[in-house]
Amino acid sequence: MSHPAKYFSELIISGLQSVVGNRKVALHEPSFTGNEWLYVKECLDSTYVSSVGKFVTRFESDLTSYTGAKHAVAVVNGTAGLHLALLLAGVGHNDEVLMPALTFVATANAVSYCSAMPHLVDCNPENLGFFVEKTREYLSDTTEQRAGQCINKTTGRVIRAMVPMHTFGHPVDIEGCLRLAKDFNVQFVEDAAESLGSLYDGKHTGTFGQSGVLSFNGNKIVTTGGGGAILTNDEKLAKKAKHLSTTAKLPHAWHYVHDECGYNYRMPNINAALGCAQLENLPEFIAKKRNLFNKYYNCFKDKAGVSLVHEPEKSRSNYWLQTLELDIADEKEQNKILYAVNEAGFMVRPPWKLMNTLQPYRNVPAMNLDEAKRLATTLVNLPSSQGLLG
Amino acid sequence: MSHPAKYFSELIISGLQSVVGNRKVALHEPSFTGNEWLYVKECLDSTYVSSVGKFVTRFESDLTSYTGAKHAVAVVNGTAGLHLALLLAGVGHNDEVLMPALTFVATANAVSYCSAMPHLVDCNPENLGFFVEKTREYLSDTTEQRAGQCINKTTGRVIRAMVPMHTFGHPVDIEGCLRLAKDFNVQFVEDAAESLGSLYDGKHTGTFGQSGVLSFNGNKIVTTGGGGAILTNDEKLAKKAKHLSTTAKLPHAWHYVHDECGYNYRMPNINAALGCAQLENLPEFIAKKRNLFNKYYNCFKDKAGVSLVHEPEKSRSNYWLQTLELDIADEKEQNKILYAVNEAGFMVRPPWKLMNTLQPYRNVPAMNLDEAKRLATTLVNLPSSQGLLG
Repeated sequence: MSHPAKYFSELIISGLQSVVGNRKVALHEPSFTGNEWLYVKECLDSTYVSSVGKFVTRFESDLTSYTGAKHAVAVVNGTAGLHLALLLAGVGHNDEVLMPALTFVATANAVSYCSAMPHLVDCNPENLGFFVEKTREYLSDTTEQRAGQCINKTTGRVIRAMVPMHTFGHPVDIEGCLRLAKDFNVQFVEDAAESLGSLYDGKHTGTFGQSGVLSFNGNKIVTTGGGGAILTNDEKLAKKAKHLSTTAKLPHAWHYVHDECGYNYRMPNINAALGCAQLENLPEFIAKKRNLFNKYYNCFKDKAGVSLVHEPEKSRSNYWLQTLELDIADEKEQNKILYAVNEAGFMVRPPWKLMNTLQPYRNVPAMNLDEAKRLATTLVNLPSSQGLLG
Repeated sequence: MSHPAKYFSELIISGLQSVVGNRKVALHEPSFTGNEWLYVKECLDSTYVSSVGKFVTRFESDLTSYTGAKHAVAVVNGTAGLHLALLLAGVGHNDEVLMPALTFVATANAVSYCSAMPHLVDCNPENLGFFVEKTREYLSDTTEQRAGQCINKTTGRVIRAMVPMHTFGHPVDIEGCLRLAKDFNVQFVEDAAESLGSLYDGKHTGTFGQSGVLSFNGNKIVTTGGGGAILTNDEKLAKKAKHLSTTAKLPHAWHYVHDECGYNYRMPNINAALGCAQLENLPEFIAKKRNLFNKYYNCFKDKAGVSLVHEPEKSRSNYWLQTLELDIADEKEQNKILYAVNEAGFMVRPPWKLMNTLQPYRNVPAMNLDEAKRLATTLVNLPSSQGLLG
């Protein structure tokens, strides 16, 4: 280890002070500087606050315009979106789903809701996401193709899908993912919960896979209070997603006929009203986040032992969460730094705990996770609100 | 059959015209006549629209004050509440859950989410809900007690819980339910989705069972856009419900440790803000609904072949949905009447289709359902908004 924890704490605190000033700062706060009041009030005045209403339709339409996806289905949160997207990908009882070890637990939980099992993949340090090359080697060794299905030779289970996640807004190697999915016969679902506004090869994340899932949680670049959406170019899938998210009710003026076990996963109209206003400001939010990245970059670029995570090749990131990588050896050091910087009033945090360290996922299949382990220890998220610099 | 469909259509149309005037009227609309905008605006201004915020805490506290339950946990909708309540009752893989055949599909779906199976119960015509006496006879014949569990002798499965639903706001025979649950060793969970404000023996529905579940969907007496809550007097259960509804994350300033497979079922703060304002007006809403009942009652009381459903014994109903029972023989007649009255601009509807007529629940265990079958055909819900008479 080249520097003690104190070195990093002081470096980060003085860096943050120089960029955001000497004040208490949250990790991420939403900005309501546009038509939020107007639309939410209009929604209340209409009395259509719930399942029916023009804002849900408009929000879905605005999402397709913005992302270029042919269809968008608004849902109650990103977790619900992932659950439906996996069901649409055919994930079911006793299947396995490839997903990053370093992600928010919702990705793994959504797999569990399908009675399937996460199968954990290492992290590519270039983009903090799904490590395509390593997974290709791993799958070549550990799976076989049988009747057009990818079979885990150890467990005998079908690996039905892969769910890369665009960590902190940075797109994974999507081309590599597409090839991998094709070569190994697994469905490709994009967990784009953090990457609204992020492009890969000029195209919006979440629009490459069979479907992509967005989140509009309060900590995201755009929020609806709680909310999410499924993006897809497949009309049939979009209809099925809408059907499943609205209790699988068949259209009828008064009869309640449901043709399968559906879910109450629709987004309420009042939340969509908020979303419509937020989306209008998304380009401005991204510009501000990219500006914040530049400020942090200039602040930390010449400092020994730290580097600011930047957008990967071929990508334009929304820079949802700014991230420093520290040249430290272990979690103990990381905790000391986190403690000191948080104490100083700047909210910083580590990435999530790796999925295989959590009680419910301790025994799921996993490849070697050395990079993910390292990154879980060396990364620190910095205050990243779009409104941070005014 | 004593009268043709035309008789009933004309009777209902002229009745509705006399009570609500000659205009288009919805089945149920929310009323936002209080502090809704004030609180929602305050919520937006605070920027705490999502998982953290004072309105969620306040809404839960207001719900305990109003219902008398010791604890309330706000969730994203009633379906999510039912799912959690069943998990808390220990419902799991291959269990059976006694529930009414006549209910909204969410009750059955929540059972399915637990990998359990609905077991359908007939309808007591006195309260339109769980037919306690008939169920007691049925269970005496078809189940046996083994190691303190109620075993379905036909399927060999454990009957783990019973979930009566207070139909249209009218409380079931709760005393009978409590005795039944005790005698047969099944957990008693109340589906109080429709009965916020309804009392049984002077006590609020949803507070008698191990837990009770409320809904604040857009069509309910009080709405949060989408929302629900779990009521319980058991502190441990309340904590567990909150934990499961918030991804089972352990409290920590920055680490993301989740100790079981949880859910993203929390209610966003912006929806809770709406709920706080709505709850303030609940007593007024109930008074208006009871007044509407009286108007309808006087209008239909001397008419042949119809009777207005009134609150059951020992109960004070919120009269969420006003309901006529018609002396008709079949669904064909009912459809003719529904068609004519809806055509005239008054939105009316039948109860839900019985669960065993729906594709996903065609083959679930069920007792004889004669009363439920009859009621599904003879009942018609009338326009019931609290704001209907101004």
